[in-house]
Amino acid sequence: MKTDVQIAQEATMLPILEIAKTLGISEDDVELYGKYKGKLSLDLCKRLEEKEDGKLILVTAINPTSAGEGKTTTNVGLSMGLNKIGKKAITTLREPSLGPCFGVKGGAAGGGYAQVVPMDDINLHFTGDIHAITTANNLMAALIDNHLHQGNKLSIDPKRITWRRGLDMNDRALREITVALGPKGNGVTRVDGFDISVASEIMAILCLANGMDDLKERLSRMIIGYTYANEPVTAGELEATGALALLLRDAIKPNLVQTLENTPAIIHGGPFANIAHGCNSVMATKTALKLADYVVTEAGFGADLGAEKFFNIKCRYAGLNPSAVVIVATVRALKNHGGVPKAELSEVNMKALANGFENLEKQIENVKKFGVPAVVALNEFPTDTKEELDFVEERCKELGVNVVLSQVWAKGGEGGAMLAEKVVDLVEEEKGDFKPLYDLDMPIREKIETIAKEIYGADGVDFTSKASKEIEKYERIGLEKLPICMAKTQYSLSDDPKLLGRPKGFRITVSSVRASVGAGFLVVLTGNVMTMPGLPKVPAANKMDLLNNGEIIGLF
Amino acid sequence: MKTDVQIAQEATMLPILEIAKTLGISEDDVELYGKYKGKLSLDLCKRLEEKEDGKLILVTAINPTSAGEGKTTTNVGLSMGLNKIGKKAITTLREPSLGPCFGVKGGAAGGGYAQVVPMDDINLHFTGDIHAITTANNLMAALIDNHLHQGNKLSIDPKRITWRRGLDMNDRALREITVALGPKGNGVTRVDGFDISVASEIMAILCLANGMDDLKERLSRMIIGYTYANEPVTAGELEATGALALLLRDAIKPNLVQTLENTPAIIHGGPFANIAHGCNSVMATKTALKLADYVVTEAGFGADLGAEKFFNIKCRYAGLNPSAVVIVATVRALKNHGGVPKAELSEVNMKALANGFENLEKQIENVKKFGVPAVVALNEFPTDTKEELDFVEERCKELGVNVVLSQVWAKGGEGGAMLAEKVVDLVEEEKGDFKPLYDLDMPIREKIETIAKEIYGADGVDFTSKASKEIEKYERIGLEKLPICMAKTQYSLSDDPKLLGRPKGFRITVSSVRASVGAGFLVVLTGNVMTMPGLPKVPAANKMDLLNNGEIIGLF
Repeated sequence: MKTDVQIAQEATMLPILEIAKTLGISEDDVELYGKYKGKLSLDLCKRLEEKEDGKLILVTAINPTSAGEGKTTTNVGLSMGLNKIGKKAITTLREPSLGPCFGVKGGAAGGGYAQVVPMDDINLHFTGDIHAITTANNLMAALIDNHLHQGNKLSIDPKRITWRRGLDMNDRALREITVALGPKGNGVTRVDGFDISVASEIMAILCLANGMDDLKERLSRMIIGYTYANEPVTAGELEATGALALLLRDAIKPNLVQTLENTPAIIHGGPFANIAHGCNSVMATKTALKLADYVVTEAGFGADLGAEKFFNIKCRYAGLNPSAVVIVATVRALKNHGGVPKAELSEVNMKALANGFENLEKQIENVKKFGVPAVVALNEFPTDTKEELDFVEERCKELGVNVVLSQVWAKGGEGGAMLAEKVVDLVEEEKGDFKPLYDLDMPIREKIETIAKEIYGADGVDFTSKASKEIEKYERIGLEKLPICMAKTQYSLSDDPKLLGRPKGFRITVSSVRASVGAGFLVVLTGNVMTMPGLPKVPAANKMDLLNNGEIIGLF
Repeated sequence: MKTDVQIAQEATMLPILEIAKTLGISEDDVELYGKYKGKLSLDLCKRLEEKEDGKLILVTAINPTSAGEGKTTTNVGLSMGLNKIGKKAITTLREPSLGPCFGVKGGAAGGGYAQVVPMDDINLHFTGDIHAITTANNLMAALIDNHLHQGNKLSIDPKRITWRRGLDMNDRALREITVALGPKGNGVTRVDGFDISVASEIMAILCLANGMDDLKERLSRMIIGYTYANEPVTAGELEATGALALLLRDAIKPNLVQTLENTPAIIHGGPFANIAHGCNSVMATKTALKLADYVVTEAGFGADLGAEKFFNIKCRYAGLNPSAVVIVATVRALKNHGGVPKAELSEVNMKALANGFENLEKQIENVKKFGVPAVVALNEFPTDTKEELDFVEERCKELGVNVVLSQVWAKGGEGGAMLAEKVVDLVEEEKGDFKPLYDLDMPIREKIETIAKEIYGADGVDFTSKASKEIEKYERIGLEKLPICMAKTQYSLSDDPKLLGRPKGFRITVSSVRASVGAGFLVVLTGNVMTMPGLPKVPAANKMDLLNNGEIIGLF
């Protein structure tokens, strides 16, 4: 069997200018990065504004398991399937981070015959967007520490600095550090830490900005810490906005690539799905909607986190009106949710499958709460039996939700044609009526409780005294109207990663609330949320190589 | 008067594929990064190997002062001047670092009418080479700390790790830090620090590598620290080589841009000129030599550091045979060397000029020691008087060295034509006989003493006990045949930045010696060498902006 990187390296790509041409984009509006990657000009994005929008399809999933669900694969495959049945489609995805690539994942751009290419470039530096964000993030940090060192005119309390440094790396040793040790010239000693770059507020901002003006306003609003009097200090007050915008001048432009079957793909932005909202950029989605009849997009993790934030944050801010949702599940992952350990997932276990199905059931309910029609994509694995597949289909039908077998991993667009047909039916027949789950005028605690009860199925929410004090502060400084960005384990509907399936009778504990004012949301932390991953015992990096003939080993 | 960025933004650039065509390069060998930047393929570099070399001209200078000498400006202007007089020329330069750009410099790509363009791109992320180096540097660091955390099979002594982290930023707070604070999962607590990325050994390696094979071998040889038994541990032993090479896959390819007058410019690599050798990449210089009759290249700081390392390290390793050297000086900088403070440099002061001239005199002597013919380029400033210019010319003639007035800042290639004529004369008439200053078989201390006495004019060298112990260790582990990379203040011939002009009766103190085994040299530290700059009271970043029409403020 061929590996993903082998399939990708054997693909027949079209020059990206030809892909652009199929979308009606002239070469003046494409900035080439090599022959197969291009950035779309901001001029183009602006000129398109008058055009009518295509239909927006979100691909989400059950709570992820170590068995793998294939959400990105389904997204890519669906876009290829739509093309196969004669619809003009674009897939929009997040940019992968280098950290997980060299840590555990070894790359991520779909899988099998449903990938975006050039897969190697996309997984390495791509067009440099994340590097630009890292640089902007760390310029902000350097300006803050330099401000302390040069006299601290703004009276920033070194103990109340909330801005952290960033690297696009899995580096456990940087989670908590002391900076500015040594002689006086090194600055003011304090405790700090690095987050992985995709967790930077600047990434979230880039992904929610409508254009350069909006980007600058958002950058300027970022709260980087508080004064000795506990008043917020912004990036604007530190005169950082212009330099940060300059560093992001190219990163804000959407990137055009293609699938293995030459379907256009716009891959742009990649905010973390825990402390940020986990969706590709608004610029990418909006531009794609002007260029195609169907735009397939994704949101991080399962529907409880990804779809909820896609709807309540991204769609609300960007004025998007999604037409349908695809919920991805696999028999293996459902069995895992039903209690079967990873090593035994190839064996039939109908009881576990029935138990695990409850996770899918809850995610279907969740999606329906937003008024958007849904279809379950059952992503086929070679070990699946007819009995198991039939069971899931039967249960879905009992719930009144559409379900389609997806075979995009093995068969590409052809394997996604059935799913594509169903999505088109859904969009044409069921008029969705999208609405966010909560009103922004609700008090902060109530918004959090609404999400916890309605989406997670929790009995209620407990706030630590730290979280309560923070909420009071945000109410005092006028941030109470912001939407909520939940940071919760992705593995469970609850805040305990070990509670799989559909847990009941649990409460959510909010340990802390952060303000991402530039991005425009309050980050609500539950349990231990990791913002800087570590490397495993044998990092993927150890197995990587670049051979003399250009062949790549270890990206998969 | 127009600013540099205004002049640059008004330039009429040719598409980079057209520039490539003038060099006989087909578009298949150029990977475009937008319309005006391209990476040259490694295939091209390899195919050219059989061709005859053009002539290599080094541009160096007196010890730099705050008055500014215009070394890069002269380099760019000379290449344009050579084109003006009908010679096929290419300028090769280092890539600017973002750190100084947002700190004090606000950009660096020549000045006035002698610049390389697109100046804004070159000063921002360019083609991402430095970001790739930063990432590789920090992957190495993450692998080391993860190795400690996961059981430390190689018995690396946490107190003996020499590898440091890196960022392309001026950030004083990161010079000395403690990493891995917090819970056990964060790893093994130890003291660490960040250097600016251009000080990373990986940057030096990229700039000395002959191709991908050589790059991999060098990466694998890097010593990242020592075991509890004080034996070296290499990147190869940590199984990092393949992943690092993969990250540098594109960064190793030379970047093609152009001057304001459309002369081809290859800008590639930018190692620090103190703890590294301070020259653009060997790949760039060698490729340029195959494509043009004259290649103008540069080395960091003054001739005592830059030219010495260019000759003894870069030319020796790459088998280059430089044909001529241009030594840049200005009347203002010479007066500064003669004791005049910056604010009074516009006033005539013949006595100070005579005193300061001694710095130039010594640098002329230095260049002659390598057997290469030299010419002094007197870089004209509006405040210079005829009396002062005549004095410098007269003194140069007395020393038997060629001297030419250069007006490239104000007049571009036309202002550099006279210098170009003189360089061509020199190359055609004087057969240089390049040889390095010292033999690699000399003991380590003797090599250091040779440089200190012959080039700096020191009476001798003192070694701290730390340095002596380190030298003994390197002799023990077989590193005694490596060339020397001096890290010394750039402002003085001595190791005291305050001793301007031509100091006498001084000794050099070697405080420490580091081994850059991948790059292939021993770094000899004298005085305080800064490997992570800080931001000034008012950082250049504070004045930067990006306007709605795309106009850039604050890059100059």
